Amino acid sequence: MRIDIITVVPDILKSPFEASILKRAIEKGHVEIHLHNLRDYVTDNYKQIDDYQFGGGAGMVMMVEPIDKCISQLKSERNYDEVIYMTPDGERLHQKLANKISLLENIIILCGHYKGVDQRVRDQFITKEISIGDYVLSGGELGAAILCDAVIRLIPGVLGNETSALTDSFQDNLLAPPVYTRPADYKGWQVPEILTSGNFPKIEEWREEQAYLRTKNLRPDLLEEDEK
Amino acid sequence: MRIDIITVVPDILKSPFEASILKRAIEKGHVEIHLHNLRDYVTDNYKQIDDYQFGGGAGMVMMVEPIDKCISQLKSERNYDEVIYMTPDGERLHQKLANKISLLENIIILCGHYKGVDQRVRDQFITKEISIGDYVLSGGELGAAILCDAVIRLIPGVLGNETSALTDSFQDNLLAPPVYTRPADYKGWQVPEILTSGNFPKIEEWREEQAYLRTKNLRPDLLEEDEK
Repeated sequence: MRIDIITVVPDILKSPFEASILKRAIEKGHVEIHLHNLRDYVTDNYKQIDDYQFGGGAGMVMMVEPIDKCISQLKSERNYDEVIYMTPDGERLHQKLANKISLLENIIILCGHYKGVDQRVRDQFITKEISIGDYVLSGGELGAAILCDAVIRLIPGVLGNETSALTDSFQDNLLAPPVYTRPADYKGWQVPEILTSGNFPKIEEWREEQAYLRTKNLRPDLLEEDEK
Repeated sequence: MRIDIITVVPDILKSPFEASILKRAIEKGHVEIHLHNLRDYVTDNYKQIDDYQFGGGAGMVMMVEPIDKCISQLKSERNYDEVIYMTPDGERLHQKLANKISLLENIIILCGHYKGVDQRVRDQFITKEISIGDYVLSGGELGAAILCDAVIRLIPGVLGNETSALTDSFQDNLLAPPVYTRPADYKGWQVPEILTSGNFPKIEEWREEQAYLRTKNLRPDLLEEDEK
């Protein structure tokens, strides 16, 4: 998979791809990440990429031209499955959408900054708008990092143990059950007896029950979704 | 505001705080970010911070002791309003929760990694569990960066123009209206005439209408929330 990220602050995105699972996924060749600094696509001397809003109001708006140039350049080099814009009013990212995107070959992710991009960019170039949640961020960069993380870990071979992702929360509309590790007794706080019993069918049963109970308590909406 | 972040991969969190708005917020003294490497709180020679799950299964679990040591150390130095754990089964982050957290003085954010932390950590130390959305990530680090970004930009003085955050999406349960900037005509794609009319009361009216229509089309659930 190849991911091209277009941004005015590429520096924000350095460290998330230089550590842990994402770093190893890149090193192993499971994914290529290309950061594009929007300022490299500006022709004037001031490297201006934003301007005041038409109609007045606080906050700068990212101009069409540099974005047009960058996306057009990339599209002339290869085909893209999606041109994604990170925005709080996009489709909310959820595990099923991450699964779907993990199957694509080439995607572009455009990060908005300031007050967002000129609406004509969204009308003309964007094929999918994604929000990582109902809150506002300084820019789309961290949202893009989240999207990449959620997607890349699903690419076969990226996680050491492939069953690990399958037992995560949301893959079956259930939250994950509680987990425990050594020591079995820490300051008098005990691990549930069943987990040290060695009775694996019972343990499996307990975990399913715990996952169901936790979901019912914390996120009953997920169970309803399952019944649809 | 002071934010202490506990993590096994502090490297991931470097660049998000070294650029743009978060960097300036730190430089201006609006917020202090302290990263704590969990491995510094391990006494054995292997610097082990995780172990296999009790009961078997894929994925490692973060042990209680190093987390206990780190949190206890911090708590002995000052009072904390919240000890937050980033987890997909926590309360979903939304703008109102970000507003609330932005008013606190000292918080700890614990980032899970691998399969998560030993449940006893959650039972004994955590006062608030937060999820940034219904998807699974490699760890809580990027979630913590998201939480910090959403919260820090709300601290008075952080954004250049304080009205800018107030007109963002979600502050009034409405999505933001479309924005446009120069040029008014780009490759034949025009800015809506009203925005270049100079009739500001009419422009305000148009924006409210657009915000309402966009919300009705894309996120009718936000309008229902408003009626509650």
